[in-house]
Amino acid sequence: MKIGILGLEKLIEVQRSTGTAILIPRINVFMDFPAGKSAEHHAFHEATDKMISELLSEKITALEELCAEIIKKLLEKYAHATRAEIDMEAEYVVLRRTPASGQKTQEMYKILARAISENGNVRKMVGAEVTGMTSCPCAQEGLLERSKKMLEKKFSKKEVAAILKTVPLASHNQRNVSRLLIEVPENYSVNADELIQILENSMSSKIYEVLKREDEVSVVLESHANPNFVEDVVRKILVNVAHKYKNLPDSSVVFVKSESFESIHQHNAIAERISSLKELRREVFSA
Amino acid sequence: MKIGILGLEKLIEVQRSTGTAILIPRINVFMDFPAGKSAEHHAFHEATDKMISELLSEKITALEELCAEIIKKLLEKYAHATRAEIDMEAEYVVLRRTPASGQKTQEMYKILARAISENGNVRKMVGAEVTGMTSCPCAQEGLLERSKKMLEKKFSKKEVAAILKTVPLASHNQRNVSRLLIEVPENYSVNADELIQILENSMSSKIYEVLKREDEVSVVLESHANPNFVEDVVRKILVNVAHKYKNLPDSSVVFVKSESFESIHQHNAIAERISSLKELRREVFSA
Amino acid sequence: MKIGILGLEKLIEVQRSTGTAILIPRINVFMDFPAGKSAEHHAFHEATDKMISELLSEKITALEELCAEIIKKLLEKYAHATRAEIDMEAEYVVLRRTPASGQKTQEMYKILARAISENGNVRKMVGAEVTGMTSCPCAQEGLLERSKKMLEKKFSKKEVAAILKTVPLASHNQRNVSRLLIEVPENYSVNADELIQILENSMSSKIYEVLKREDEVSVVLESHANPNFVEDVVRKILVNVAHKYKNLPDSSVVFVKSESFESIHQHNAIAERISSLKELRREVFSA
Amino acid sequence: MKIGILGLEKLIEVQRSTGTAILIPRINVFMDFPAGKSAEHHAFHEATDKMISELLSEKITALEELCAEIIKKLLEKYAHATRAEIDMEAEYVVLRRTPASGQKTQEMYKILARAISENGNVRKMVGAEVTGMTSCPCAQEGLLERSKKMLEKKFSKKEVAAILKTVPLASHNQRNVSRLLIEVPENYSVNADELIQILENSMSSKIYEVLKREDEVSVVLESHANPNFVEDVVRKILVNVAHKYKNLPDSSVVFVKSESFESIHQHNAIAERISSLKELRREVFSA
Repeated sequence: MKIGILGLEKLIEVQRSTGTAILIPRINVFMDFPAGKSAEHHAFHEATDKMISELLSEKITALEELCAEIIKKLLEKYAHATRAEIDMEAEYVVLRRTPASGQKTQEMYKILARAISENGNVRKMVGAEVTGMTSCPCAQEGLLERSKKMLEKKFSKKEVAAILKTVPLASHNQRNVSRLLIEVPENYSVNADELIQILENSMSSKIYEVLKREDEVSVVLESHANPNFVEDVVRKILVNVAHKYKNLPDSSVVFVKSESFESIHQHNAIAERISSLKELRREVFSA
Repeated sequence: MKIGILGLEKLIEVQRSTGTAILIPRINVFMDFPAGKSAEHHAFHEATDKMISELLSEKITALEELCAEIIKKLLEKYAHATRAEIDMEAEYVVLRRTPASGQKTQEMYKILARAISENGNVRKMVGAEVTGMTSCPCAQEGLLERSKKMLEKKFSKKEVAAILKTVPLASHNQRNVSRLLIEVPENYSVNADELIQILENSMSSKIYEVLKREDEVSVVLESHANPNFVEDVVRKILVNVAHKYKNLPDSSVVFVKSESFESIHQHNAIAERISSLKELRREVFSA
Repeated sequence: MKIGILGLEKLIEVQRSTGTAILIPRINVFMDFPAGKSAEHHAFHEATDKMISELLSEKITALEELCAEIIKKLLEKYAHATRAEIDMEAEYVVLRRTPASGQKTQEMYKILARAISENGNVRKMVGAEVTGMTSCPCAQEGLLERSKKMLEKKFSKKEVAAILKTVPLASHNQRNVSRLLIEVPENYSVNADELIQILENSMSSKIYEVLKREDEVSVVLESHANPNFVEDVVRKILVNVAHKYKNLPDSSVVFVKSESFESIHQHNAIAERISSLKELRREVFSA
Repeated sequence: MKIGILGLEKLIEVQRSTGTAILIPRINVFMDFPAGKSAEHHAFHEATDKMISELLSEKITALEELCAEIIKKLLEKYAHATRAEIDMEAEYVVLRRTPASGQKTQEMYKILARAISENGNVRKMVGAEVTGMTSCPCAQEGLLERSKKMLEKKFSKKEVAAILKTVPLASHNQRNVSRLLIEVPENYSVNADELIQILENSMSSKIYEVLKREDEVSVVLESHANPNFVEDVVRKILVNVAHKYKNLPDSSVVFVKSESFESIHQHNAIAERISSLKELRREVFSA
């Protein structure tokens, strides 16, 4: 029997090297017990909340560390549990500048953290979720063929190539929400800000809360120069992770998910992948 | 004091001239009472549910008629109430064909119905909600200027004009959800299927649950040939309403709302307008 | 790489032995591919939608059968896929009578269906989701002790026992949403209506869209006579499944989840269990 | 035409007399224009965001002040607009102690702020949203009658009265979300913490993120000693407002809304009231 608490919220001050971040994560806690030996929910909830409250009065340097500490305390109390999992998800604000006009913006992201205990081992993951933009490669290619055919009636092949290099061809594009979680082994650390950067660089374009017209033009240009299906976004994130985290051990697990709120459909497209860094490195560096 | 019931659901068979539609609307009921003279919630809920159940055993030809009937029964029971309102919102499936390949699709919409009683008068509204696509005029214009300037270095003005007429220029585009409600006076009728058509024709492009590549190209072309801000969508819907419903009286009220899930921002853009047909006609036909 | 479609909706007529049910399930489709050999999303979506559309023109007797048929077709097209999964979730209306006054009500449930292919094997599951009520055993017990102590100052132990048997003691209670899915092997069938019954009988009390006062009293009495933590609800569902489905093979998998929207907290409590019927039977019948 | 921005988010440091609160409100901005003279959405959005960003670099003492400042700036830019409205909604954490065991808890609320401009007048409102618990008076009364009748077969009327005074009778209870907004005239101020207190004191009982068993018993006792329909909650909030804010002018408007997530139904019950303090005072103090 798995029992759990969904949607606990706590204000947490995280002492990062770059300063104190005040986060209010939404917290889920799960614990698995052998059949017939489950904890009683009221007692489980009271114990969990007490542990979290006590840990909040100590110095916290990262959400995933806090997750791991809670898991350890839970396992001390419930030694017969077969598995424990805790995950946190918090809004996170970063100051940035827009791409063309360079004006300041506040951008919103999510920081993710998770700890899982199986067979006495506590594994930690840190992650981020980013909203960006994807442009569809398929529609763009269709329009490329069509435009080429039409232009070639009036212009030389060389001219047509020049035109199509100059003019950004339409496609459909949409909001995309992607998330990346990386396992952080003991004595290693991974910075959520870097994960945000990887995610943004793997989409067709970043997006911004405010855009002057020249910024908007720049975003649309970038997006259409980088058309991506959701599976392409996942692939790019994985490649970027492989290049960025050369120091992490082979055993580290990477989880990536990308979801597009399709503008040409009412439903959504998703892609996801779970992989060890070992597997990922083999694919990326031996290709 | 206003008291209300949110989210009641009933399976309703509507006998339309084109056949029987089976709908499961989400129903909200509200009633306003003078201070100190409110109905007791349990009794109000029991009475409302009983009235709806009784009406369901009779023949129903339109959701807005059902709304009006419930209001009338409520006012008989609660004669001292100062206002009553009921609204319904149901998923609705229409069979269509895709624009280029002509294959069959099932498309999902919402049918809306509402009745309001004020000063002894019961007013009925029928409506629809449609998901479609909008392309941004602003970004497209920016890209037009940029492309023009770059092309004019190599081509004559005439050639540039020809190129820009041929090649569909990029913009950002997104899911748009728009709704339209029209007041239906006694002895008139308005068909929800027509409202769906008006809504779809007022967006940058319709969207479809499935699209062959040639359909996708067609949708993107149409969308970029009709760039619209949300306020443009609202304006087009209103103009289309004015042309379509010449028979309805001047006093009929029209409500329109359009919301775009911006692909270049994390937040949404909306526009809305409430207007009488009289006001609308003056604007549309004297312009 | 897993790719998927989220939130496809189709109107489906299911020919059940008891009549035709018209359902509009929300459909999710997922397919796993070896690294570097993923399907392209546009093609995958077009193929999936075409398969579903073709199957909709044939006779459908159960949603889980439809799920399995789609999976089989997907595997024919994408032979190199390592896994495929499809799940459906549809609103479902049942006519019932209230417990005390016996008046007719329409009650809303969800029918669930799922098919998964792994290692060439397609497994089907049918399920249901029910909203009901749970009363907390812990608070009730605390109030029992308190009441006992206070009553024993004035009444004999025998009298106190008689009083506490007569008077329904307060507790906190809340909306509970529970779901049950059972694997249906080839040549077996499981009726979703029976699953709904099992779910309702395993909560503290069923709930109804409308209740006369005598019905409300009856529901509250039943609920407080059957206090349950979420894990108790899961346990009861499993026991009821073991007793009901003696004909299903040992290998059938049962999934149960229960979530309470706690009235004394802002967060929710959940419990869940995945078990084979073999494991379940050992626990239930050898205890 | 009304145009608007939905769901803008900004990190805002509010310098309150009790310290600095860091809030990330969800912001909606709306502006009404005469027919045919609407602002263009891109320009409107850019201007609004720029104004907010500039104001964020100044000292902010209350969200409603910030709302009013934005409105004033918007009206300077769009002098022909007929109406402007801005509302903010932010998560807000308060440290509290549980009722019986006195342990520390973090409780989550929402702070609300709004400014509206009509006819050149900017009006500000401050508010709060609280989740608490309501117990149903109707079911409890039904059980009281039933228990009385059964007890009177064995006990004297006096004894029965004593028993029913001692034993907390069951009812159904549920999560309730209530909100209160009060207009704050120029040179007055209203503290959101006080509004939270009023809301909590007007429900059947406060709720807590963690409760020892003795706290849980205390919460259930309090809740069942104060049964309330949603309209009762609204009424109590209004009475509490009338008593608390004797200094505010008659013209101040009060908005109250209460919604119960009924445990015995799948749908919700709501009540709401908009009233001037003048009207409210007449009702409360002349009764």
